[in-house]
Amino acid sequence: VPTYRIDLAYDGTGFHGYARQHGLRTVQGSLETALFYSTGEVRTSVAGRTDRGVHAAGQVVSFEVEERLDTARLQRSLNRQLAPEIAVNRISEAAAGFHARFSAVARRYRYRVWNAPVHDPLLARSVWHVPDLLDAGAMDAAVRLLIGAHDFATFCRKAPGRTTEREVTGARWERNGDLLELSVVAKAFCHHMVRSIVATAVEIGRDGRDPDSMREALEARDRAASEGTAPPQGLTLMEVTYPDDTQGSLRPM
Amino acid sequence: VPTYRIDLAYDGTGFHGYARQHGLRTVQGSLETALFYSTGEVRTSVAGRTDRGVHAAGQVVSFEVEERLDTARLQRSLNRQLAPEIAVNRISEAAAGFHARFSAVARRYRYRVWNAPVHDPLLARSVWHVPDLLDAGAMDAAVRLLIGAHDFATFCRKAPGRTTEREVTGARWERNGDLLELSVVAKAFCHHMVRSIVATAVEIGRDGRDPDSMREALEARDRAASEGTAPPQGLTLMEVTYPDDTQGSLRPM
Repeated sequence: VPTYRIDLAYDGTGFHGYARQHGLRTVQGSLETALFYSTGEVRTSVAGRTDRGVHAAGQVVSFEVEERLDTARLQRSLNRQLAPEIAVNRISEAAAGFHARFSAVARRYRYRVWNAPVHDPLLARSVWHVPDLLDAGAMDAAVRLLIGAHDFATFCRKAPGRTTEREVTGARWERNGDLLELSVVAKAFCHHMVRSIVATAVEIGRDGRDPDSMREALEARDRAASEGTAPPQGLTLMEVTYPDDTQGSLRPM
Repeated sequence: VPTYRIDLAYDGTGFHGYARQHGLRTVQGSLETALFYSTGEVRTSVAGRTDRGVHAAGQVVSFEVEERLDTARLQRSLNRQLAPEIAVNRISEAAAGFHARFSAVARRYRYRVWNAPVHDPLLARSVWHVPDLLDAGAMDAAVRLLIGAHDFATFCRKAPGRTTEREVTGARWERNGDLLELSVVAKAFCHHMVRSIVATAVEIGRDGRDPDSMREALEARDRAASEGTAPPQGLTLMEVTYPDDTQGSLRPM
């Protein structure tokens, strides 16, 4: 059956997250409603189910249909129907069996902290404002300790019976003036993982705590060892990689 | 009398421009209302009266009061009172006679164009989306022809009796991926000047027209020779320079 891939971006501010929920405005609900007009009812799968308020620059969705579609026309139709907070950047026919979620080999997230005494109104929708001066070097050293395959239970929202083993292949904090940016790559993340890592890294950066306390938190395998969950608006799903990507594959970190 | 300088930033999306207008939500109205609580009624002056929907990263406001103020306390008080779309980044005592508008020796504006087939939801509030591929080299060559002292009547909103002579000291377009950015510096700008220059430059970049047609438009000294006014959300007042600035002075272009 013909299988299609949609690359999309969205500003998550006005949505109750990606996943469809009855009676709430969601990205999936908006997208499937717009798709319905051109394709009839379809079941979509998504690479990263972002939470309420989280953004995406390179989200990937896939679906199967009975008959071949005119992708250029479908893209125009979707962009006309969707709110300006969502943009369909590309629609392409994928290999049979392609699945946005299960075929993905890597996901990259970005988290941005605005680290200045006063907030920045021009960035407010996409940063977490932390007024206390943070030690970006300590935060960077701390997250690098997470690289590798570990049990990330400390940083995962509780989901009894599900594994919390994940493999982080890249993690770094960079400071650019008052803006601190985390870039983190893994095959997959558990729920709340990036935001829990951020909250813990920020506490390390604030207190001048030893970066090694990140390792202690990790090894505790206990939700209580994290510093909670950083707010959603700082988080953006940047990029998803598939094995057959000839372009757009993740830069090594 | 003690004279104070406020450095502020704002997201202009939700305001009817900077200047106070009866019954409308404006930046000046919000600021003076917040000031009133701490200082009583004051008359403020501003470096750049931005239009509805235009943003500022480095706006400057000044005012005089009878008695010396606690600037740190006033800054906290203003930031607590103001909507999150406005940030007071600094309040400092200025030399006697300092005037945000008349003392300024240079203003720098930025205009951003998102030049890709599909809009970008994460930048939508601060760019003009132009889907047709633009020739940034031609646009850059065109605006460089404006550098110098000229009669900018072509690019000024009509204001009978007022001079339209201005001196542009720097102007350049740069492409960074799909983002085109104009940076332009002058001692002062007439009303609509940057947005009219942008509209004309974009037409040059779209049509593969000779950059020299910018000079022809300028020399016509006729509003009809411009291509209208680019939309406000792409425009940001970045920086204002004063003669005694020891830091934060405009970079040479």
